[in-house]
Amino acid sequence: MLGKYLDKVREKSPLIHNITNYVTVNDVANAILACGASPVMADEPDDAVDITSICGGLNINIGTLNSRTIQSMFKAGKKAEELNHALLLDPVGAGASKLRTDTAVNLMKEIKFDVIRGNSSEIKTLVLGSNSTKGVDADKADAVSDENLSFMVKFVKDFAKNSGSVIALTGAIDLVADDKKCFVIRNGRPEMGRITGTGCQLSGIMTAFIAANPENKLEAAASAVCLMGVAGEIAFKNLQHGDGNSTYRNRIIDAIYNMTGKILDEGAKYEIK
Amino acid sequence: MLGKYLDKVREKSPLIHNITNYVTVNDVANAILACGASPVMADEPDDAVDITSICGGLNINIGTLNSRTIQSMFKAGKKAEELNHALLLDPVGAGASKLRTDTAVNLMKEIKFDVIRGNSSEIKTLVLGSNSTKGVDADKADAVSDENLSFMVKFVKDFAKNSGSVIALTGAIDLVADDKKCFVIRNGRPEMGRITGTGCQLSGIMTAFIAANPENKLEAAASAVCLMGVAGEIAFKNLQHGDGNSTYRNRIIDAIYNMTGKILDEGAKYEIK
Amino acid sequence: MLGKYLDKVREKSPLIHNITNYVTVNDVANAILACGASPVMADEPDDAVDITSICGGLNINIGTLNSRTIQSMFKAGKKAEELNHALLLDPVGAGASKLRTDTAVNLMKEIKFDVIRGNSSEIKTLVLGSNSTKGVDADKADAVSDENLSFMVKFVKDFAKNSGSVIALTGAIDLVADDKKCFVIRNGRPEMGRITGTGCQLSGIMTAFIAANPENKLEAAASAVCLMGVAGEIAFKNLQHGDGNSTYRNRIIDAIYNMTGKILDEGAKYEIK
Repeated sequence: MLGKYLDKVREKSPLIHNITNYVTVNDVANAILACGASPVMADEPDDAVDITSICGGLNINIGTLNSRTIQSMFKAGKKAEELNHALLLDPVGAGASKLRTDTAVNLMKEIKFDVIRGNSSEIKTLVLGSNSTKGVDADKADAVSDENLSFMVKFVKDFAKNSGSVIALTGAIDLVADDKKCFVIRNGRPEMGRITGTGCQLSGIMTAFIAANPENKLEAAASAVCLMGVAGEIAFKNLQHGDGNSTYRNRIIDAIYNMTGKILDEGAKYEIK
Repeated sequence: MLGKYLDKVREKSPLIHNITNYVTVNDVANAILACGASPVMADEPDDAVDITSICGGLNINIGTLNSRTIQSMFKAGKKAEELNHALLLDPVGAGASKLRTDTAVNLMKEIKFDVIRGNSSEIKTLVLGSNSTKGVDADKADAVSDENLSFMVKFVKDFAKNSGSVIALTGAIDLVADDKKCFVIRNGRPEMGRITGTGCQLSGIMTAFIAANPENKLEAAASAVCLMGVAGEIAFKNLQHGDGNSTYRNRIIDAIYNMTGKILDEGAKYEIK
Repeated sequence: MLGKYLDKVREKSPLIHNITNYVTVNDVANAILACGASPVMADEPDDAVDITSICGGLNINIGTLNSRTIQSMFKAGKKAEELNHALLLDPVGAGASKLRTDTAVNLMKEIKFDVIRGNSSEIKTLVLGSNSTKGVDADKADAVSDENLSFMVKFVKDFAKNSGSVIALTGAIDLVADDKKCFVIRNGRPEMGRITGTGCQLSGIMTAFIAANPENKLEAAASAVCLMGVAGEIAFKNLQHGDGNSTYRNRIIDAIYNMTGKILDEGAKYEIK
């Protein structure tokens, strides 16, 4: 059922503007190309507004933010909202520094995002205003588990209601919710945490999914999460003796490149709560 | 015949300064190393001038430009011109934003480049002052084809004459021209467009080719285009079941690394018009 | 004997803040993950201080420095020193430009580093105040060889004494010294010089080793050098026909990922002088 949203990305090939960190930007670009969309990056304020104007979606990722790129995030974000583009916020490291927390919170206040995608610590920070984090990785104490699942499903639905955004809280168990419905997704591999930037790649891909499927934002976001997870599983199966996290990174992007709607449908493991 | 220009790069190993975008910079560095030259990157104005001074070539790529790096492009470009270094302009995204178009046009006005390398939309923008583009990819309407080949050959020769630069317009069919002679090159694979940065890599490599072959700039630029295309063909043949754009990216750089003048001569497909 | 320091990194998994260049930053992040630690990057001054505070180590790499990131280096460096964190300086390109030489020298004056890791030209520049370099690669005239070994061992010991830092001078022969003891290490492969960023990766890894082994900084730094060298040897053995520098890059990170203390102990080739 979720495979058709990938097919739409390949059919429409939306152009996605990414204001994103320089650590994982190359992988974000190749992951967006792998799923059938096109990436472009700009972060000087005037340039970011112009580039946003010719795109179909904007992915704002606050990792390695600076005073100049923060301006670009606000200006391009407002332009994207005005043009009714797909708009995603990835609050990388919210909770880890005052600047990141403040920037994410203020972006949410001034701009209406279609989706907010982060790990459990980042999402909790956005709701609570502050939180403990482990750098750009989630604190274990914040993780979604079978024990706290009902609580966390309600938590993300409430946040979706209050923010007006689809919330994608990703980790070992992924939750993708609007105010009424929550996809609980169990794809992926723990070894994906040993690669830098799988979350950043997912944010870029998810923006493309929303841009290509504007009538079904919740399902499109859930489909992107399943795509990343299924790709991680396929890539893991393809690993050979001696392979490590660098080859695994390449194999995941390769698996996205070779994914079809059918394979995605067969591999997606989720329930709706 | 074009293979000897690669041999010269391996023999002289020029040091190439790249003021380039952060999306593809790592691949540019590894591609320059793969062809036998050495890369260095700097983009703070004073630093960029000093680093330029110890190099043999300067590759200016305007992707992810900002107000600070634009200053570096002008200052380092003037220093490189003064020192008679190989000088290349890659007008990434010219036509997609005012800042990019203006920066590319002004760089051309103030600095004499040995080569300008871009896709058809970017090159048309530089000639016409404005144009439609699809972000950092060429608009299909601008593509060189068998139907418009004579027109486009004249177009790039005219631009070469007016600018005093060798023009390398790359795409499915590549044109590399000075005012009298145009190489029409048919190497490469369409799948290269599904990898971010093959154009950026080519610009870095081409700067090294010009630096190592200052007496034969046109042929050296054409040789670099053939190298990239032949590498793309070899890498494509080496792909295995399950490989995608991330592995293809690695395989292309690997093929450049293993290229010899002889393999390049055998694989290069071009005519001169 | 040196393998146990790797085991400690995997056991403690320190969080390492990297203010580093955008050319090789992705590889630095994946290399840090491969050895069992976690990376985070920030370079806006206030953000860099906050992020430093939650980490166990700070890796300052001056490649692609700019006026804003230089401020971050000083502010975060002082915070890390105040918190007694592991602190490493990688003076990329010192000697190649005035800004780089001045920044490295001033960082050393104002901040006490646990380790300074660079190539022979960069280290000589820090001692002598100026030197010839070949961009970001060492000048051949500066290389450590069997002929000048005694002289160079004394040179790094003297610099260790004067600076109060462990000195890691890496090249074909690596020297890792404090004022009394010098590890002379002969691991690695010359082909590693055809990949961009193996030195940057080593600096990130070494910071993690120091953070996890604060009581044995000299041995931990030497262990990190051996890890990189042994990984380079294993990766080279695993290369297949048609592989080049891009695959070699991936294979080295993979080999770090799969390294154990035992493999490291068996592969490490060093003497103590």
